[in-house]
Amino acid sequence: MSDTISKLLSPRSVAVIGASADPQKTTGRPVAYLRKHGFSGRIMPVNPKVDRIGDLPCYPDVASLPEVPDVAVVLLGAERAHLAVKALSARGCAAAIVLASGYTETGEEGALRQKQLLDAAGSMRILGPNTIGLVNLTDRIVLSPSGALEISEFAAGGVGVVSQSGGILGALLSRAAARGIGLSKLISTSNEVDLELADFIDHLADDPATQVIALYIEAIRNPVKFRAACLKAARQGKPVVAFKVGRSESGAKAAVSHTGAMAGADTMYEALFNQIGVIRARNFSDLLDIPAALVTGRQLRGRRIAVLTSTGGGGTLVSDDLGVAGFETPAPDAATADALRALQTGSEAVLDRNPIDVTLAGLRPDLLRSAIDALLASPTYDALVIVVGSSSLAMPELMVGAIKECLPKSDKPVLAYISPHAPEVGALLMQNGVPAFTSAESCTAALAGMLRVRNFTPTEQDDTAIAPIEVGLLPSGTLDELQAKQLFARFGVPCTREAAVARASEAEAAARELGDRVVLKILSSQITHKSDVGGVAVNVNCATIGERLDRMISDVKARCGVRPERFLVQEMVCGGTELILGMHRDALGTAILLGMGGVTAELFKDVTMRLLRQDEQGLRPLSRAQALSMIRDLKTWPLLDGFRGRPKADVQALADAILAFSRMVAQLGERLVEAEINPVFVLEQGLGVRAADGVAILT
Amino acid sequence: MSDTISKLLSPRSVAVIGASADPQKTTGRPVAYLRKHGFSGRIMPVNPKVDRIGDLPCYPDVASLPEVPDVAVVLLGAERAHLAVKALSARGCAAAIVLASGYTETGEEGALRQKQLLDAAGSMRILGPNTIGLVNLTDRIVLSPSGALEISEFAAGGVGVVSQSGGILGALLSRAAARGIGLSKLISTSNEVDLELADFIDHLADDPATQVIALYIEAIRNPVKFRAACLKAARQGKPVVAFKVGRSESGAKAAVSHTGAMAGADTMYEALFNQIGVIRARNFSDLLDIPAALVTGRQLRGRRIAVLTSTGGGGTLVSDDLGVAGFETPAPDAATADALRALQTGSEAVLDRNPIDVTLAGLRPDLLRSAIDALLASPTYDALVIVVGSSSLAMPELMVGAIKECLPKSDKPVLAYISPHAPEVGALLMQNGVPAFTSAESCTAALAGMLRVRNFTPTEQDDTAIAPIEVGLLPSGTLDELQAKQLFARFGVPCTREAAVARASEAEAAARELGDRVVLKILSSQITHKSDVGGVAVNVNCATIGERLDRMISDVKARCGVRPERFLVQEMVCGGTELILGMHRDALGTAILLGMGGVTAELFKDVTMRLLRQDEQGLRPLSRAQALSMIRDLKTWPLLDGFRGRPKADVQALADAILAFSRMVAQLGERLVEAEINPVFVLEQGLGVRAADGVAILT
Repeated sequence: MSDTISKLLSPRSVAVIGASADPQKTTGRPVAYLRKHGFSGRIMPVNPKVDRIGDLPCYPDVASLPEVPDVAVVLLGAERAHLAVKALSARGCAAAIVLASGYTETGEEGALRQKQLLDAAGSMRILGPNTIGLVNLTDRIVLSPSGALEISEFAAGGVGVVSQSGGILGALLSRAAARGIGLSKLISTSNEVDLELADFIDHLADDPATQVIALYIEAIRNPVKFRAACLKAARQGKPVVAFKVGRSESGAKAAVSHTGAMAGADTMYEALFNQIGVIRARNFSDLLDIPAALVTGRQLRGRRIAVLTSTGGGGTLVSDDLGVAGFETPAPDAATADALRALQTGSEAVLDRNPIDVTLAGLRPDLLRSAIDALLASPTYDALVIVVGSSSLAMPELMVGAIKECLPKSDKPVLAYISPHAPEVGALLMQNGVPAFTSAESCTAALAGMLRVRNFTPTEQDDTAIAPIEVGLLPSGTLDELQAKQLFARFGVPCTREAAVARASEAEAAARELGDRVVLKILSSQITHKSDVGGVAVNVNCATIGERLDRMISDVKARCGVRPERFLVQEMVCGGTELILGMHRDALGTAILLGMGGVTAELFKDVTMRLLRQDEQGLRPLSRAQALSMIRDLKTWPLLDGFRGRPKADVQALADAILAFSRMVAQLGERLVEAEINPVFVLEQGLGVRAADGVAILT
Repeated sequence: MSDTISKLLSPRSVAVIGASADPQKTTGRPVAYLRKHGFSGRIMPVNPKVDRIGDLPCYPDVASLPEVPDVAVVLLGAERAHLAVKALSARGCAAAIVLASGYTETGEEGALRQKQLLDAAGSMRILGPNTIGLVNLTDRIVLSPSGALEISEFAAGGVGVVSQSGGILGALLSRAAARGIGLSKLISTSNEVDLELADFIDHLADDPATQVIALYIEAIRNPVKFRAACLKAARQGKPVVAFKVGRSESGAKAAVSHTGAMAGADTMYEALFNQIGVIRARNFSDLLDIPAALVTGRQLRGRRIAVLTSTGGGGTLVSDDLGVAGFETPAPDAATADALRALQTGSEAVLDRNPIDVTLAGLRPDLLRSAIDALLASPTYDALVIVVGSSSLAMPELMVGAIKECLPKSDKPVLAYISPHAPEVGALLMQNGVPAFTSAESCTAALAGMLRVRNFTPTEQDDTAIAPIEVGLLPSGTLDELQAKQLFARFGVPCTREAAVARASEAEAAARELGDRVVLKILSSQITHKSDVGGVAVNVNCATIGERLDRMISDVKARCGVRPERFLVQEMVCGGTELILGMHRDALGTAILLGMGGVTAELFKDVTMRLLRQDEQGLRPLSRAQALSMIRDLKTWPLLDGFRGRPKADVQALADAILAFSRMVAQLGERLVEAEINPVFVLEQGLGVRAADGVAILT
């Protein structure tokens, strides 16, 4: 497979099907660009209406090609592309890039056409359709009509890009070129009838020219492959940065249970990215900014940043934004301040502050160099941001040279903040190993990305085989509360003690058995919002429960027209913290969700999720480390951890319950449509947890 | 006063004190720039060592000036600037711009120098010191050595800028010039020994050339004037946009009470800005982006945005980001879709979606114009964002012309999203009335700013005179809980019923009087965290309270070494929602703070604040509308409003309590150092509120 992708990215011969002799036309561009950017292999245009394109012979059809091309670029429309693909496959071509649109993106008819295209390809691999192609900057091979290729010079470098949008590929190519950010390969996968995101991540993880992988994602079609490819890249020390559109779709998602409402598609992506160390670009511009910093290979070991400036405003903007994001900008230590002061004889600069304002250094490269050396040598700082003021812009080569000379003396990250109207200076810095940004927010995003790479350690799920729990014959459909909790309990989730009763006398006996204070609820798989219909009474005792049950019958009947037949008498849990523990499943996979308190989870979106790993044996339960990290992820974690003198909660028991619940979800797999415990009470340390209510739906 | 500022911004004659004949030097630039940019008034350089600067006679000192200048630019260092200022004042000059640094920004010695400078000025007004001066683009008068003035052409327009940083003035000037954003006046106020932010806001509110005011703020020195000036601008229909640095300082603020911890300096600014309709620029780039949209004068009437694109990627980025910010991008209505379809004969474009992708329109101005017309005429949309794709960039004049022609037919906002490497196209659009942005986030910020302007109505505080409450002789220092609540109650805050007791028998009597279930607490003005020392017992009844009191004595003694002498027996409030109601005072003013639940307020920062208006009579209490808007501001407001079937809370009683508390804060003024009710229980509708605990510190 990776052999085919190697051929696709670095072919020795390329056929261009439907090539025009007019280089202004989209169909004329691929041949023109291949030549313009110096492709040294054989180019074979195919067009029955043309004899030659420039000095290249043009062939009437695929069958007439003098040799089997490694790769074909198919420029025909959707109505004819599959015919060319079939002919190419028959000739033994390794891969075809199909640019035509009019497939799945246009609706049902297009989807049929796409299926036809795939069938036509046989064993030949397809990139596209609806793709803008690819650009291999490492080897200067361009297989694309993107207008961005009009430019004559690109900076080749270590950032590999895979984009699910063609237009975005051009945008990234132009922006990187303007900024001096060196790229290795750019691939637009678009409709992904065959080759997809994960295939290229996997390939770039092995590509010696690629150090960082940047992704533009619309939808991950194969999460299992995606996960494996990203983890492979992480193992190879190549960070993956992703920008994903569709962040606001979640709002539109229909909400069945609480869990459904809180676990929108985007939250699932967020969870997946976090689990496999993919750094999320929050803004589109971050998708180049973060890789530009990561590709230097420098490691950010902490949050303490020195901001060196020769201009007032910029330093303030940078350190203010760093502060908002949780970075620190401590003042120089005494030795560093002395070293800086020695450079500024006769100046009024105040050097016990950060931003470190060395006014003269903006005009004198030697001073700038000495100041950088002092700050990089200081134990106070983990990284340095240099604000390149307008005075430096008058002599960019000298200033960039001074900065560059300091780099080998330290392995700390060095970034630059420059004026947005000095793109040449930015590009010069970038090419000399200093990532340069035109906004404070970009500096912060880049440093935050570096910190995430540094802090990521894949907490792999437990691979220990777990004996399946004997569950017997499970009912189908919506379980009632008692059945649901019995199911949870079988997997080891501690539930409230309870008894199902039908009449007052039974309720009294149950209440006596369960202790003085109990909860009385209707038991029904139809009515899910019991409180709304008057079907819940708390703090009832055995003396009053009979009368309360009778009243509940008439209340519920009055409110929803149904006379309840069965009731649950449940021990009343006092104190503790209420959580919600559930599952969520969508195209991305199956996740376990933990949230604090029904109300807090919803109003403050205080929920965290972990996707279960899927392998050939099915879903894998969470590991204990994952369960504990979920608990600590909650914004309300301090409440469980003894906030303001509260007793500490039984976190270990909660982790046990999460593990048990995840084992259930993993073992039941597709049979389990929905499952949620709401609330689960977490009691004080040593007292455990209790699932007090729950729902489950089985197929 | 505004006369002086008029003179300062539009002088007929300017003296430049310390002018150098070398235009490369900072001291040579002001004269050079005045001439370069075409100042038509008289320029009088002063320098004893030089006879002429170019063709201008140079004067040895201020006394020798042939006429009294309207304005003087003082280029001398801090050690001599005050002498020139004194001489200028003696001559009757209206205002001096003092550029020297070395004043308050450097420490105590500098502060003395600044005082000396002010004394020297007498009745003459001072801009600065430590300023970079000002630029009047309307009249092409530049009184500044800023290197940004090297440029030959600026776009004059409707955005007035006041900056407390000199460096930032240059940055904004360059950025605006590069982007084609037209400015009216730029003023750097810096140290503000005399003229300050509010003076210029007030002036620009009356300036016919200024439509929008942009502020770069480090600290507001005079909040009362600032508030008045911003409200005046709002009345004149001139929106004020502010970027404020120091957003992360709040973390460092020492926390005395809960209120103090939650009300950092930045939160106070946020509250002030919201109250007076100042739109906050979240990023530095927003400080030009939002005004660029507002200066068109177009009004955004809703959240429904059409995104018109001729390129795939950009449209997706824009609509995705709009969605995250709560904007809607609905599909075209049937009539609009038909109109669009009629334009695209033979194309495969799908026109029932938004972004509206009209592929051909990127190449044909007539199609673009028709598509824009259709979308602006559609009742489905409140505004239009046009993604100007790379194909349009080949013929910018034609495309911009097409867009421009559509503008007069609709008053809806029209914005453009363009590639960052086509700054000329952006500037061309901007100059033709179409604000153009290079990132999706900027488009969103601009639209959000427009919506805020549209939705702002100043809820002025009540001016009705309120008879002061008779409070008698108040104690000084930290009040104990009983005293604090008695104080709150005197102003009308309902408090829990309670009695102070010293021994078990009194406690039993009090408990009997207050009902069966009570709370027992130690009563002390020394121990503020009663729970931490075992000084609180809830749910006690008259049978057990005596024994519980004795146990509390030994518990507290054991934990903090002090034997409690007095206790509070308090009715126990059941149910309801816990809030915190407090005050906060800092340099910006005095604010009332409302937060939900002690824990929620702290962990989720669910607090809202309103600054009390200060006038000649002192502080003014909140209005009822303000109190209600505070309650609705809380993220947890749904909890009070019947969330998920809960009973509605007594919001009117809560508003009454907030009003009462604000009256107390207003009336007591500086005497009240700290006051906080925590918690105040809000009961069900009709049952009122109860302050259950509180602190107050009086001077």
